[in-house]
Amino acid sequence: MTASWLPSLITATPEEGFDLAIKLSRMAVKKTQPDDEVRARLRPVYAEDPTALVAISHVVAANFQTVAAANGYWRPATA
Amino acid sequence: MTASWLPSLITATPEEGFDLAIKLSRMAVKKTQPDDEVRARLRPVYAEDPTALVAISHVVAANFQTVAAANGYWRPATA
Amino acid sequence: MTASWLPSLITATPEEGFDLAIKLSRMAVKKTQPDDEVRARLRPVYAEDPTALVAISHVVAANFQTVAAANGYWRPATA
Amino acid sequence: MTASWLPSLITATPEEGFDLAIKLSRMAVKKTQPDDEVRARLRPVYAEDPTALVAISHVVAANFQTVAAANGYWRPATA
Amino acid sequence: MTASWLPSLITATPEEGFDLAIKLSRMAVKKTQPDDEVRARLRPVYAEDPTALVAISHVVAANFQTVAAANGYWRPATA
Amino acid sequence: MTASWLPSLITATPEEGFDLAIKLSRMAVKKTQPDDEVRARLRPVYAEDPTALVAISHVVAANFQTVAAANGYWRPATA
Repeated sequence: MTASWLPSLITATPEEGFDLAIKLSRMAVKKTQPDDEVRARLRPVYAEDPTALVAISHVVAANFQTVAAANGYWRPATA
Repeated sequence: MTASWLPSLITATPEEGFDLAIKLSRMAVKKTQPDDEVRARLRPVYAEDPTALVAISHVVAANFQTVAAANGYWRPATA
Repeated sequence: MTASWLPSLITATPEEGFDLAIKLSRMAVKKTQPDDEVRARLRPVYAEDPTALVAISHVVAANFQTVAAANGYWRPATA
Repeated sequence: MTASWLPSLITATPEEGFDLAIKLSRMAVKKTQPDDEVRARLRPVYAEDPTALVAISHVVAANFQTVAAANGYWRPATA
Repeated sequence: MTASWLPSLITATPEEGFDLAIKLSRMAVKKTQPDDEVRARLRPVYAEDPTALVAISHVVAANFQTVAAANGYWRPATA
Repeated sequence: MTASWLPSLITATPEEGFDLAIKLSRMAVKKTQPDDEVRARLRPVYAEDPTALVAISHVVAANFQTVAAANGYWRPATA
């Protein structure tokens, strides 16, 4: 039994939550294109294309909405 | 009577929820283009096109928002 | 008095909710382009264009968010 | 004092809510391009372009999320 | 001390809320391209491009979701 | 131990929240393309491209949804 790549949406901090949003965004790409070599070949295309970078940022924003909601927005506990 | 392809939005784990989000994303394509052969022909186009891969990841993110909300974000029960 | 094409957002099952999301997505197109012949002419363009198919799946995802929320995510009643 | 074009987000039925979502989508275009003649010239471009029609449907879906939430999803009153 | 351009998300009416959503959409552009002359030069490009007009309407829809939620959808007070 | 770039989603004002939404949008780009020089080279491309500016505004809108929700929309406290 292998460990899950997504055991939980809960993170200790907003920054870790943002990193999880990036991971979710990449995992959807990986599940569509599982070939590591192909993804490695495509990566520089994304990374130098302004349109692609903005599109990626949009996907991360959508996933961060989910992760942030899951974590109650990491709001400090109040009395 | 055939079984539903979508009996429930509830999943045991976040990872299964993510897989369901991918299934929802693909099913919308299938309902628009029901011809298996055409979809099989188009699949390599998606899988090698950086723009398409990011767009697919965005659709999965939108569906994962729904599935995650349905599952109360798989938050551990608290006292 | 004709029957409404959208009498309710409530559906018996998630699968019917997904079909309603597809109907909402198509109806917005129909309201913008009411000419049945033009839409019939455009349909094969969508159905063979990977980019369009992903874009359609995104619209369905957005509408499914609405329908799923309306239905309380079809969560089983709990004690 | 002229009447507001948007006095309320509340509608009697889901179908009227969908029409309001379409109105919101068009009004944002009108506020960006207030010239009626220019919009009239652009309209056939949208209406025959599959990509534009899907994009319009996406905007309507986003606005319908808002209108549907405002109306409590037109859920029937329950005991 | 200059006044904030965004002192509050609360507006008296839905129509004012929609105008605020447009303002938010434009302000994000202004913060990315602060040069007034450049934006003035680009404005006619947006305003005559059907694709850009639909894209702008989508951004307004996203911001209107936020403003409408902030205002409790301007629902009339109920007993 | 370095300070987090995202210690919290809570801001004192809506305007600061909007700035945080812009920061989140840029940080996702930076995490995909960490090379400062490449990003500096791409920046003028975004800043003069109407389509890119609208796309960026859309990402900011998505992140502002998250930040605004985290802050309870900065609603004034009511009795």
